[in-house]
Amino acid sequence: MNTEDSILNRAGSPVRPTTILEPLRLSERLGAKVRLASETFQHTGSFKFRAAFNVTASVKQNLLIAASSGNFGQALAYACQLLGKSCIIVMPKNSAEVKVNAVREFGGQVEFVDITKKSREARVNELAREHSDAYIASAYDDPLIIEGNSSLGRELRVLKQLDTVVVPVGGGGLMSGIVKGLEGSGVSVIGAEPLMANDAAQSLRTGEIVRNNNEPQTIADGARTVSLGRHNWEIIRKSVSTIVEVPEGMITEALRLLFTVANLKVEPTGALAVAAVMMAPELFRGRSVCCVISGGNVDPAVYARILTENTEVPR
Amino acid sequence: MNTEDSILNRAGSPVRPTTILEPLRLSERLGAKVRLASETFQHTGSFKFRAAFNVTASVKQNLLIAASSGNFGQALAYACQLLGKSCIIVMPKNSAEVKVNAVREFGGQVEFVDITKKSREARVNELAREHSDAYIASAYDDPLIIEGNSSLGRELRVLKQLDTVVVPVGGGGLMSGIVKGLEGSGVSVIGAEPLMANDAAQSLRTGEIVRNNNEPQTIADGARTVSLGRHNWEIIRKSVSTIVEVPEGMITEALRLLFTVANLKVEPTGALAVAAVMMAPELFRGRSVCCVISGGNVDPAVYARILTENTEVPR
Repeated sequence: MNTEDSILNRAGSPVRPTTILEPLRLSERLGAKVRLASETFQHTGSFKFRAAFNVTASVKQNLLIAASSGNFGQALAYACQLLGKSCIIVMPKNSAEVKVNAVREFGGQVEFVDITKKSREARVNELAREHSDAYIASAYDDPLIIEGNSSLGRELRVLKQLDTVVVPVGGGGLMSGIVKGLEGSGVSVIGAEPLMANDAAQSLRTGEIVRNNNEPQTIADGARTVSLGRHNWEIIRKSVSTIVEVPEGMITEALRLLFTVANLKVEPTGALAVAAVMMAPELFRGRSVCCVISGGNVDPAVYARILTENTEVPR
Repeated sequence: MNTEDSILNRAGSPVRPTTILEPLRLSERLGAKVRLASETFQHTGSFKFRAAFNVTASVKQNLLIAASSGNFGQALAYACQLLGKSCIIVMPKNSAEVKVNAVREFGGQVEFVDITKKSREARVNELAREHSDAYIASAYDDPLIIEGNSSLGRELRVLKQLDTVVVPVGGGGLMSGIVKGLEGSGVSVIGAEPLMANDAAQSLRTGEIVRNNNEPQTIADGARTVSLGRHNWEIIRKSVSTIVEVPEGMITEALRLLFTVANLKVEPTGALAVAAVMMAPELFRGRSVCCVISGGNVDPAVYARILTENTEVPR
């Protein structure tokens, strides 16, 4: 089978429409009419492909360099494969093997960095000097990223009787894109951020970007960012008034709930929006809510451990 | 939120269209163009709702009685809830708690039977005598079941360039329904059956229904049937020439592959079709194949154990 054929046969962008699910038992548990916009079946298993494809297709450079321990790396590698470009992905030495392999499977070149000795940014900057012809792609802070992610917001406009969209927040690339895509629709956007990585919630409270001292080690690894991106902040500060801060235990509980009542496999970051509804039910009770499931890529062993927390694994 | 409202607002049948997924990495691994028709997001998490709703809506009786340790029970309970009818589900005493709870959550009455002392059928017959006004619903062997499941076959007719549909086989209700729904389309139907419950494959070889002595304890619990149903056999014998027999280890490997490269949570029975493609690659190489994922309901502990087989669960 020729994979590219099946992609290029489609009209327009290769980005897949999001998968809308309506698990009735989830709505009953949460006391709200809940729909899920699942990006777990997007190319490379997360919303990041929307942004990665837009960046890769928009810039003139044929080589892209990015730091990513996770979904953006895979997404960029696949976008480059589709568009006949190449990329170098800087990953921490201790990255999950499944993520390293995924980048390589899509033809991406992996450069490891020992982050106890050198930051990812420093390594990216070194590579940028070696490859002066390359485009340095931020995983979230770039107008092209926001534009790519805005396609998801536009897709959600077709949902009838929608009050609120709940979106995971890390660097803010997804949230600012969704705000853009929903502009003028009257649908509100609420953020869902890990409590232990709550720089975005703090930023909203103080009115300026608050930075973590280092990457918070939340289980929601897609939200392990030091701060919001500048481009994202300009959009978020004007349009978002609430970011729900979610404790770690609620993130894993939401992951289990999605497994049990929605048959949906999500990565911890992907469970954030549902966790926010569980955390602050008074914000959502009786309303019509769309929870954005940002991605589904998670190690089997990590997932199995979360599933069986508080229970025994029978052997 | 009023759940029934959201159902009844839709035009026509409440059955959800199947979810078509095209995981490119799965196609690459399997050497065929593979699409998945996932019934894991169907009401009650499996295709069984198609049949259960059709039976419940078609019969005049207001009480239905059925034996089911699994998906048919949930599906029938929910169909009865939607249609204002009631049901009694006979379940083995050692049924998974999650399945018992699901039946009750949809308003079904559960009757336990100690299958070491009495067969489910015997208990159903007792209940039938107590409730002479009830309809005794077979989980698979009933023209109304086949008619309900045929809706999935009709949905698959819209897939372009489709050569073959691969379908899990237990009692044969799903397969005969899909054959019916695809009639005249030129698409072939291949079965996927656990090797340790291979009565359907044996039936095809001998030309008559072969029965297991008792319910084979395959991990694919949806295929733990003693034999094909008579109505189903009449359809299958004329239209199906191949049933792939799948060893237990291949079923769990397919479940893991769907987790890893398709982000799809499936129950073991739901992995059968993909396992068949792995088992007999020569039948499918280079062809366009749709694997039917029959359902997604599985205990978290069982799923976690399968995910981490051959690996350690880190704690």
